[in-house]
This record gives sequence, C-alpha cells and structure tokens, in this order.
Amino acid sequence: MTNEEEQVLEANQKFYTALQDLSLEEMESVWLQEDWVKCVHPGWNLLEGWEAVREGWQHIFENTHFMRIAVGLQSLRVEDSMAWVCCTEKISSAAEGRFDSAYVQATNIFECRQGAWYLIHLHASPLPTPWPDDGTSEVVQ
Amino acid sequence: MTNEEEQVLEANQKFYTALQDLSLEEMESVWLQEDWVKCVHPGWNLLEGWEAVREGWQHIFENTHFMRIAVGLQSLRVEDSMAWVCCTEKISSAAEGRFDSAYVQATNIFECRQGAWYLIHLHASPLPTPWPDDGTSEVVQ
Repeated sequence: MTNEEEQVLEANQKFYTALQDLSLEEMESVWLQEDWVKCVHPGWNLLEGWEAVREGWQHIFENTHFMRIAVGLQSLRVEDSMAWVCCTEKISSAAEGRFDSAYVQATNIFECRQGAWYLIHLHASPLPTPWPDDGTSEVVQ
Repeated sequence: MTNEEEQVLEANQKFYTALQDLSLEEMESVWLQEDWVKCVHPGWNLLEGWEAVREGWQHIFENTHFMRIAVGLQSLRVEDSMAWVCCTEKISSAAEGRFDSAYVQATNIFECRQGAWYLIHLHASPLPTPWPDDGTSEVVQ
C-alpha cells in the first residue's frame, strides 16, 4: 500500500469514527466544506453543498442514540488528487426507541487539498442481503 | 461549460444510450475494461472488475425487452483525469412480462485515458420518491 493509499484509508476511517461517535464536529473536519460536495444517504434524495450535507448529518445525529458500524473495505483507488473507496457497512443503531440493523453499500470519494484528503462525495445505499464473509472486512471500533 | 465537461457529458450520454439500446457492444465501448472497475446496480451487491460488470449488463439486457430512461443531470465535476456525474434516472422497462417504472439515484465516475473518457464506477440506488421537477432535467431519447 502506498503512502497516499494509507492517507486515504485514514481519512475513510476518520469518517466512520465521526459517524460512530455521532459527532458533527468530527464530521466537519472530514468533509471538504464547499458548495458542490454531495451526499446520498440510504433511501434519501441527493444532498448538494456542504450546508445541506451538514444539516443531513445533524438530523441523523440528533435522532440517533447510538451507532456501531462494521466496515468491510472492498477497494481503494487513488488517481491524481482524487481517490475513491468502496465499503460495505453493517450499521447497528438505536433511534426513537427502536433498534435497527442495516446493511449498506457505500462509495466514498475523497479529494486531496494541500496534502490532506477530504470527503467530497458519499453515495450509500441499502444492500439487500448481508455480504459474504470474504475475509476482507475490518471493524471500526 | 468547458471542453472537458462537454466530453464527460457526452460519455455520460453515451452510457445512457447504451443502456436504453440494451446494447452490450455499446456498453463495452463506454467502460474502461480493467479488473478494478466497479458497478452497483440498484439493490445489487457490488460487481468488481470488467468481466463481472459485463456479465451484469449481459444479464440485465437478456432479461429486459425494452427500457426508456429520463435522465435528470444534477451535477458534473472534473478534477484532473477524473470526473463524476450525479443523475436521477426515471427508468421505464419491460421484463418477464411485467412493466416497471423505477426512480434511481446514480453516481457515475469517469476516467480520462488518452483524451477519451471512460466509465470506471457506477453506483445506482433506488430513490424513494420521484424527484421534484426543478427544471434541470434533460431526457435521453
């Protein structure tokens, strides 16, 4: 794994830690705060621009009591200043008195700015079935 | 719109034409045929590598009698040799004696190779409701 790939993986990990911590502050440091960044949560319409993306996270965090995520890293590719990561996510969460477990397919795109990688696009969608255990998964604790 | 953006838009349009034509041959000319390209169809697990992606399209085309797609272009961004396009798709199709209509959110990533743009990653997922008519949509005929 190259240095760049390690940095992207670290940024990706930082994103999942922010998500699991339900921390808007951490999420703010993960994303590039520009008006063209975009985010698709599972079953949501596209959010455009940092303000809308931030509000989306705020809504999720305010309505979630806890979240645990097992991330299965499927692939990571870097091209110039861009990188994208494919992951499966098993999300266990508690919200509004209910406990939920969901499987998600995610494409996370990062951009490098002054040597640091920022999330600029997230597309997450429901997976129909648990993915097979192919030994590639790692768990964000 | 820059020249590059126009080229990416053209590649994106070529993809939707291939899809609507149910043409594997056209689809082959749209994708970069490498073992790391990836594709998520709505509700499918991730397909990895051109062979798997090609088989996925083959399966879809063999089991679909016709398809019409209204594409709503939401955004297009080019960074160095990479570009990504966000679209909504209203897909009307006939397969196995049934007529279906589905709304889809898509992230299409392209890479430039020797001056030509190729699809390298597609993430398409079901949209819960029709998107609002905001005047940005264009229709692939």
